[in-house]
Amino acid sequence: MTAQALSPTLSDDELALIDAYWRAANYLSVGQIYLLDNPLLREPLAPEHVKPRLLGHWGTTPGLNLVYAHLNRVIRQRDLNLIYITGPGHGGPGLVANAYLEGTYAEVYSAISEDVDGLRKLFRQFSFPGGIPSHVAAETPGSIHEGGELGYALVHAFGAAFDNPDLVVACVVGDGEAETGPLAASWHSNKFLNPVTDGAVMPILHLNGYKIANPTVLSRIPQDELESLFYGYGYRPITVAGDDPANVHQQLAIAFDEAFDQIGAIQRAAPLDGEDGRPLWPMIILRTPKGWTGPEKVDGKKVEGTWRAHQVPLSETRSNPEHMAQLEEWMRSYRPEELFDDDGALRPELRALAPTGARRMSANPHANGGLLLRDLDLPDFADYAVAVDEPAGDTAEATKVLGTFLRDVIARNPDRFRLMGPDETASNRLSPVLEVTDKAWLAETSEDDENLGPEGRVMEVLSEHLCQGWLEGYLLTGRHGLFNCYEAFVHIVDSMLNQHAKWLSSSSQLPWRRPIASLNYLLTSHVWRQDHNGASHQDPGFIDHVANKRPEVVRVYLPPDANTLLSVADHCLRSKHYINVIVAGKQPALNYLSMDEAIAHCARGVGIWEWAGSTGGGQERSDPGSGLGEPDVVLACAGDIPTLETVAAADILRKRLPDLKVRVVNVVDIMRLQPDSEHPHGLSNREFNSLFTEDKPIIFAYHGYPWLIHRLTYRHANHNQLHVRGFKERGTTTTPFDMVMLNDLDRFHLVMDVIDRVEGLGARAAGLRQEMADARLAARRYTREHGEDDPAISGWTWEPGDGSAD
Amino acid sequence: MTAQALSPTLSDDELALIDAYWRAANYLSVGQIYLLDNPLLREPLAPEHVKPRLLGHWGTTPGLNLVYAHLNRVIRQRDLNLIYITGPGHGGPGLVANAYLEGTYAEVYSAISEDVDGLRKLFRQFSFPGGIPSHVAAETPGSIHEGGELGYALVHAFGAAFDNPDLVVACVVGDGEAETGPLAASWHSNKFLNPVTDGAVMPILHLNGYKIANPTVLSRIPQDELESLFYGYGYRPITVAGDDPANVHQQLAIAFDEAFDQIGAIQRAAPLDGEDGRPLWPMIILRTPKGWTGPEKVDGKKVEGTWRAHQVPLSETRSNPEHMAQLEEWMRSYRPEELFDDDGALRPELRALAPTGARRMSANPHANGGLLLRDLDLPDFADYAVAVDEPAGDTAEATKVLGTFLRDVIARNPDRFRLMGPDETASNRLSPVLEVTDKAWLAETSEDDENLGPEGRVMEVLSEHLCQGWLEGYLLTGRHGLFNCYEAFVHIVDSMLNQHAKWLSSSSQLPWRRPIASLNYLLTSHVWRQDHNGASHQDPGFIDHVANKRPEVVRVYLPPDANTLLSVADHCLRSKHYINVIVAGKQPALNYLSMDEAIAHCARGVGIWEWAGSTGGGQERSDPGSGLGEPDVVLACAGDIPTLETVAAADILRKRLPDLKVRVVNVVDIMRLQPDSEHPHGLSNREFNSLFTEDKPIIFAYHGYPWLIHRLTYRHANHNQLHVRGFKERGTTTTPFDMVMLNDLDRFHLVMDVIDRVEGLGARAAGLRQEMADARLAARRYTREHGEDDPAISGWTWEPGDGSAD
Repeated sequence: MTAQALSPTLSDDELALIDAYWRAANYLSVGQIYLLDNPLLREPLAPEHVKPRLLGHWGTTPGLNLVYAHLNRVIRQRDLNLIYITGPGHGGPGLVANAYLEGTYAEVYSAISEDVDGLRKLFRQFSFPGGIPSHVAAETPGSIHEGGELGYALVHAFGAAFDNPDLVVACVVGDGEAETGPLAASWHSNKFLNPVTDGAVMPILHLNGYKIANPTVLSRIPQDELESLFYGYGYRPITVAGDDPANVHQQLAIAFDEAFDQIGAIQRAAPLDGEDGRPLWPMIILRTPKGWTGPEKVDGKKVEGTWRAHQVPLSETRSNPEHMAQLEEWMRSYRPEELFDDDGALRPELRALAPTGARRMSANPHANGGLLLRDLDLPDFADYAVAVDEPAGDTAEATKVLGTFLRDVIARNPDRFRLMGPDETASNRLSPVLEVTDKAWLAETSEDDENLGPEGRVMEVLSEHLCQGWLEGYLLTGRHGLFNCYEAFVHIVDSMLNQHAKWLSSSSQLPWRRPIASLNYLLTSHVWRQDHNGASHQDPGFIDHVANKRPEVVRVYLPPDANTLLSVADHCLRSKHYINVIVAGKQPALNYLSMDEAIAHCARGVGIWEWAGSTGGGQERSDPGSGLGEPDVVLACAGDIPTLETVAAADILRKRLPDLKVRVVNVVDIMRLQPDSEHPHGLSNREFNSLFTEDKPIIFAYHGYPWLIHRLTYRHANHNQLHVRGFKERGTTTTPFDMVMLNDLDRFHLVMDVIDRVEGLGARAAGLRQEMADARLAARRYTREHGEDDPAISGWTWEPGDGSAD
Repeated sequence: MTAQALSPTLSDDELALIDAYWRAANYLSVGQIYLLDNPLLREPLAPEHVKPRLLGHWGTTPGLNLVYAHLNRVIRQRDLNLIYITGPGHGGPGLVANAYLEGTYAEVYSAISEDVDGLRKLFRQFSFPGGIPSHVAAETPGSIHEGGELGYALVHAFGAAFDNPDLVVACVVGDGEAETGPLAASWHSNKFLNPVTDGAVMPILHLNGYKIANPTVLSRIPQDELESLFYGYGYRPITVAGDDPANVHQQLAIAFDEAFDQIGAIQRAAPLDGEDGRPLWPMIILRTPKGWTGPEKVDGKKVEGTWRAHQVPLSETRSNPEHMAQLEEWMRSYRPEELFDDDGALRPELRALAPTGARRMSANPHANGGLLLRDLDLPDFADYAVAVDEPAGDTAEATKVLGTFLRDVIARNPDRFRLMGPDETASNRLSPVLEVTDKAWLAETSEDDENLGPEGRVMEVLSEHLCQGWLEGYLLTGRHGLFNCYEAFVHIVDSMLNQHAKWLSSSSQLPWRRPIASLNYLLTSHVWRQDHNGASHQDPGFIDHVANKRPEVVRVYLPPDANTLLSVADHCLRSKHYINVIVAGKQPALNYLSMDEAIAHCARGVGIWEWAGSTGGGQERSDPGSGLGEPDVVLACAGDIPTLETVAAADILRKRLPDLKVRVVNVVDIMRLQPDSEHPHGLSNREFNSLFTEDKPIIFAYHGYPWLIHRLTYRHANHNQLHVRGFKERGTTTTPFDMVMLNDLDRFHLVMDVIDRVEGLGARAAGLRQEMADARLAARRYTREHGEDDPAISGWTWEPGDGSAD
């Protein structure tokens, strides 16, 4: 339907006022892009008033300002608790202008006062060295979404709405952004939004028709296809279209009235009666010209209503008098003298159009989520420990154990914790959580379904983008969560992670922004246990990607067993403003540490496992604390499978070369490997040397690409003696042990590496080396013959004795 | 509409035959998942006939086989040139089964013969160590799409159809995959498909209702929403639904007849009359049970038609007699004795249902694109050179120069080269290409549009996923292309790159697969020149991501100027089976090398720039070739901006510390930095030392994250003396020179680094160091005052004299 058809809803006075407010926002937007001085044009515009470099985006801005002005109206009228997500975040001047107009800007940045001097500073700082970014960045009050990389506006909006029943999240989706994959999938988020316990999302698809240089797809399909598309997505579209401001003001006011009436009706009709109760939420299609109210033509070419309005319509405003005159005419067309008083403050009748206090979109605490953050009520993770009487004797499924802890985290925090996963939560063995909650589901159900429900705390959709985006929106508005994902496919959100990391870095520099809960990843179904799905599912590179982000923001943990996973997970859920990546296996795997040992080990992040090493005495050690001096070789490991292979290799060495002093070092927190100058968790050189020695060979078995370990450690003295084994892109559909053999990470190869690198081991070692090479061949032969690993290898456990410490 | 309503199209005999063919494919699929031996069940099933580890996916397979059988029918009936893209690529057993049934498998892999012994091997090899992957991998004849990571089936299909007017690309989209962002956006590819010059895509949305553990969104919305969605996407949906094979066979036959009639009509009606001629292409919605024809219930739980059928419905077939009996009953339900003759060959009346020769989907040369690859007709890139009389004197916009070359590449290769870009081709200054072609556009047009047309060779859509996916599909079917992208946002396709790299690696191991054209990236609007868009647009990490892939597949080039960019681009367009990443700026930047010098430099990939260095003579060098012995310090650089800062730093050193011997080394091909043991382009230790010295300090100015250079070089002897400057995530909206200063990559800081690291430079150097620190402060102050860089810095050019070589 089209709002146009209805009778006017705004009186002439109301319309004039709302139009004036819009003009004020547009004026301030243009001023920010162009002016250094003379902010209210109280003298004729001169070249020195204009910025030498013009950086900013005009095209989307009048539309953003229009929506803002109208949302102010409905917020006041209905006393709405509403935040505004700006998909076209490059329309930064508009959002800054509005935050300024409603007084928030001056409250947050006192130098930008509500007078002529403040206006001058407001204009000057925009896109100016030492000033503010050109986008709706963390620096912009009221924003949780920069929108620099396009695609995530709507998914952030839904994330913000979950578990916020009183909140409305208005979300402008640009028609450029609407072409991206993540945005195209995001519309289906309405199948996961519960009208009873969640808030509402009010999407506004802004068809201004153009991207940087091209028309947009959705602006160039017939209206019936467009409306069908959104009906097909499960919405009731309301179209507003035009280029006459007065007419569009009326249409948009009617459209918002109608949309918010519908939202109210949907929420009043709740709770859902029956299973087919998913409502059709309203959405608005707003079709207005790009760069509306800006220069119609420049240098003879049409600008308003075309892609040429995207950035700076007039580019030679300092050097070309015609451009300068056009700029002045453009700015004066907003009649600033009617909008601002003598002191430069917004006139009171206009100021009265904005909501007040926390109802202002720029001051809504949901857009500064740390203000609302409440710690999780966490059970004692130690209560979920597996009993470990001796190291490497029994197995557990680490993620399943974690699932029992998460189950109780969910039960204790029904309003502020969600678990996201792309259809993999059960596959990742976190299914204990389903004992206390459902998977969120508002679409149709069938009698065969299990664990689906409108209030589910687990969110599953086959889109890593949606999982990540929902969680980001949820965290940014002050809640907590965990994203569990197959390790290989988390690369799908590499770029989203970049943007979130940048947001965390920038926002941590702003004293008025409060820290939010960390973004926690559990990467499982990892590279070493995707032997069944083959090469496409094998990629450990997300850690490398994360390690490129700023050290104050990123943390990476590789707990080797169930108890260490519990300890690490507890730590991550308590932390704030980080990106925590936890990599842990889901298959049955050996337990090494009791809970107490796990806590101590995780607190250090890296440590010597005395029980696994050998003191070189050639016989049993009576005192595990003794004889632990300088080893001949260090076997280091990070990750559950590398740890298994390392402990097994050390066991072979202990038994077969009893005179060799082997130290086993396990690394949980790989940021510990960096120097302390590079990362807050980094080791000092002294600490590093005390673990890894100053000059002994280090054979490091690592979960991922081996060079990451080199990149982290190259500043340490003993780096030259470091030899790393890891994943080198050798994988296919095969058995678990064949996977490690393909990449030379297996226990036999680690023993060979030791023999190759420790000098003077003699004939016995040479014989062992040959034996190891033979063992590899035999294992390979067994696998190819039987289609599974030799149980002697896959069922290996560590046994005390034969030179061991016990 | 629903096909069900129409009258039968298959005779009883036809129906019986097509059903038998389907049963044969299903039988072979189950056999692959389960059996080691007894392939035709000619003896009772025994535990030793069953694989010990069951790896494979049954759930999607019967649907894939059903579609395959029916496509065979229409291929024969209409003599279609058709390939099959399997979105649910984990249905590998089905596609392998069909390739086997139509004889291709035995042609490609002669050991897998068409008899009982071949069947035994076919079954055994599947998901077996030393055998074949569980997915529709490169090893599967007829595939260009593994489908391990979901989301790219449809975009690959469109990529394959472009410029292949005689080809039909059938594409099964799983309803799981349909939830992903890239797939949700891919439907709009029809706005870019020209019915005259491109082929057709025949999408089949397979709603089997479930993912691994959840129902799918599209299977749980009302039929009217579903049909509206696809009408909104611009398709005419035809629904086929049911769980009775005979009924579904009839429906599907009717649906395909109708769909291919429509495709024919659309293609006959071409050429388009008028601008609104975009046709509504048909698509099929196929709703059949997951795991159809498999076990209905297992251990009392419903399996067929639920998520429990996703992988292996019966999991204890070796140990649990009930499971084994159920497996046998299941397999016998396909009546293998009716399908295969005594020798184990498919019965002739069934074999006759498959097309023959290259019409077989498994043998269509388009699915082995290297067979069809024709080299590009390339103009001589040297003809596009910018004149360079002296180094660093004039500027050019490197990508604009490249645009003139690409313009003529496009003109000369109208049928096999496309340029992809997410709305950035003009922004990236490649607009000369628009002199000879349009941007592909089949949606509505307006009179203001420029350069849009149905036959455009440039493809612009605001989705990096679509650009990448279209190009992959285009390359995999034997054509060429280039993807130009903002550097920061190419991370959006990190995960797609992973999968393509894996495909290239695997396929290069298969002698029957022919090499395809390289996947070429031009990354521009790069980190150092996104000062206007701010932090969200600044990320050079794609290179790091690419460097993790197998060395035989990846190449990364950082040409420092316009002529080197031309040379590198020509090389990349000629290459095969690589992923080439080229990073180059679009802003005016200094030219360093004449075309001849550029060619020589790029051929080496790394070289000493004698003119930029200083010989330490304290006066003019009369002979540039002389006195170039061991330097005191090496200034190395990679990337246009680091090269600029390095050359400027060397210039300062040459003038101010004339006794210091400075060597400037520029790196174009960063894989050269690795040892030759690690990468085919790697330098030997001797070569490395001859460039970088054995023991002198190296100050390396690098385009991206500095640690990549450490990771590449750590095995070289002089690594300990290497100090790298690069991007360390310090960026915002500011000026270009402020960007380099924020990251300590500026010329002044590089001079300070030299002074800090070269011993014994004395008081003059100490003074210079202070001067450099002051210069940084002054530059910063200028920028903050004026809003632009000091022209003395931004306009710097290199002048001979004062100790220079000229």
